[in-house]
Amino acid sequence: VRPLLTAELLSVGSELTVGETRDTNAGDLARRLTAAGVEVLRMTALPDDLAVVTQALSEGLARADLLVSTGGLGPTPDDLTRESIAAAVGERPGVDPGLERWLRGLFERRGATFADTNLKQAWRIPSATAIPNDHGTAPGWWVDRPDGRVVVALPGPPREMVPMWDGFVLPRLEARGLGRPSAVRLLRLTGIGESLVAERLGPLLDRDADPLVATYARADAVDVRIAATGIDAAEAEARAAEMAGRVAARLEGHVWATGPASWGERIAQRLAARGERLALVEAGTRGALATLLAEPLGDRLAWSLVLPDGGLESPVDAAEAARADAGCDVGLALRVRPRRGDTVVTVAIAGAGPRRAERRLAFLGGPQGRGRAALAAAAILLERLGGLEADAAP
Amino acid sequence: VRPLLTAELLSVGSELTVGETRDTNAGDLARRLTAAGVEVLRMTALPDDLAVVTQALSEGLARADLLVSTGGLGPTPDDLTRESIAAAVGERPGVDPGLERWLRGLFERRGATFADTNLKQAWRIPSATAIPNDHGTAPGWWVDRPDGRVVVALPGPPREMVPMWDGFVLPRLEARGLGRPSAVRLLRLTGIGESLVAERLGPLLDRDADPLVATYARADAVDVRIAATGIDAAEAEARAAEMAGRVAARLEGHVWATGPASWGERIAQRLAARGERLALVEAGTRGALATLLAEPLGDRLAWSLVLPDGGLESPVDAAEAARADAGCDVGLALRVRPRRGDTVVTVAIAGAGPRRAERRLAFLGGPQGRGRAALAAAAILLERLGGLEADAAP
Repeated sequence: VRPLLTAELLSVGSELTVGETRDTNAGDLARRLTAAGVEVLRMTALPDDLAVVTQALSEGLARADLLVSTGGLGPTPDDLTRESIAAAVGERPGVDPGLERWLRGLFERRGATFADTNLKQAWRIPSATAIPNDHGTAPGWWVDRPDGRVVVALPGPPREMVPMWDGFVLPRLEARGLGRPSAVRLLRLTGIGESLVAERLGPLLDRDADPLVATYARADAVDVRIAATGIDAAEAEARAAEMAGRVAARLEGHVWATGPASWGERIAQRLAARGERLALVEAGTRGALATLLAEPLGDRLAWSLVLPDGGLESPVDAAEAARADAGCDVGLALRVRPRRGDTVVTVAIAGAGPRRAERRLAFLGGPQGRGRAALAAAAILLERLGGLEADAAP
Repeated sequence: VRPLLTAELLSVGSELTVGETRDTNAGDLARRLTAAGVEVLRMTALPDDLAVVTQALSEGLARADLLVSTGGLGPTPDDLTRESIAAAVGERPGVDPGLERWLRGLFERRGATFADTNLKQAWRIPSATAIPNDHGTAPGWWVDRPDGRVVVALPGPPREMVPMWDGFVLPRLEARGLGRPSAVRLLRLTGIGESLVAERLGPLLDRDADPLVATYARADAVDVRIAATGIDAAEAEARAAEMAGRVAARLEGHVWATGPASWGERIAQRLAARGERLALVEAGTRGALATLLAEPLGDRLAWSLVLPDGGLESPVDAAEAARADAGCDVGLALRVRPRRGDTVVTVAIAGAGPRRAERRLAFLGGPQGRGRAALAAAAILLERLGGLEADAAP
């Protein structure tokens, strides 16, 4: 059996190439495949064009062990992925009686008229296995090639694609022998720039090393990603964990999350660990802090108040008032206002000992600037909640 | 001179193919090029691999009139776009004295040490023109090919890439003869499903027609996009506008925006037109409404209060209290709570005559469900503000 070590991803749909819709499927699948130890060779977005998609499939099949397409499985004449796969592998599609029964039953239960154009969604080529779709009318295809390569075609809507991947495709790929045993660790950093991280890590960042250590500057953190392989999953995990420990030791006091957590998720974890609830008040931010924290905090949030610019005279008093009025443990007040070309961010925290911190950020505002102010407040809060201590990360 | 009618986009960086970073550049450029009447043939994301990027450039140059790459222009050994372009067009890069002076000056003004690895960012091949970068250390390249094709290489960070595109690349491409004269109109709809839109538009949706009319179901709207060409820009604009009028006439009472506006932007426009300000209070939503509206409303928002689940007994009273306490014109209260497997969304609006509306949404919650509840409230509010009337769209 051919091992599946490399993959290419095709995203099919003219809405992508005219820039009307942003593709999230390729990035999601790339992350999942990378985590499974598969090397993604390229990701391509294509218009609804039979010849173009057919050629891209043929080229991909010459390069990669696994080809995964998303999109183009609908019932309209624009949906051409089935035709393209059939052309690329030289087979003819026909209506599969079992799929047709399933599809007609679906329309019946919905009380909808079955137009014959829908029959296309019951097509299959001889070498294809249908992939059940519990959230839509487009089954996927799993196609085994004689040389051991595999083509998987999935629908475009993520709410259909993701369950099909998780429930059918991934287990089957794993049974078939997917990727090299590998493991990934992520350290998210605050209060340190990417260049200083690079300096502290030095030779650990060698790009040919295994475990491979790489840094990424993101809007909400500097990330350090560690990827290790091994003769089996356990060895890969152990090697990744050992390197993560070495990296963390060089970056003590800056690691605010181990794994792909958000600021809100980490703050919610710390509040839960301490059995505390939080009240927020912010001004000059247009709700940037509520946008960052309200959803992930859930019932750890007593309430959140957004005030207009200039609506918060004393952050220290406001934090204490928020804590007292909400009858909760921690109150945080965030005020953002311009001063001499800079933006001054003032954060006051009440509860567990009062605290006031001021950060001066070199920008004048805008949604991005307000977002950075909210991130600064979140970092001060998480530190206050003990979230930067070496034993605090989950 | 070869007209530039087709384009391909390359996004270079292993952070994309391992799924750690989501590419937004290709989608942004696709939208801009489409608006300029250029057909985007494909968008490809590639790892930092000299041979792979070189081959993709060569293939793209055989297919498209214009090739635009983003990423891979940094100073590290991983940044290989310059080397790849040089290899694809068969030229050798060397340090450009002017670029070197500019780059050393940049480091000097920042008080930073100039490491020789940075010299790479001053490279140029003979057929390349440097594209100035006012927000970073990586100049772009504009490469004219003997057959009239053009290669443009831009850095990956959008805050560098976008100003370079707008300030240098696009004007130069337009002077050079970019695309077919064309125009696009967008109608955003509420209160009607995509299939009913398709039924009402019927033959207008013919996919070979010009103007081309297409529908897209999005999280916040059903969109109808109209794209027209013409012998010149004025004719294209007129044809697109005429078709937009015919489409709108079939969808009266459902069009909430003409153009790519968000709910918050439209509500802010209507409040400004009426000279009114708004106060919001929400419960059971985890701040979904504040997240949707606070940033775009700006100073049209008097305040916004997020309460925990169950924290809002009477939406009508809360809307009136919010309006009165904030001393503003309109108060909106949104309550979301589960009832027998559904989610019940209650919206009360105070000011300009009281109003209470209830929507029952068939889902149980989660961030997506709460987001849909916030969209339902926004739609009710915008209707109340006269934003669905035929003459209200800007």
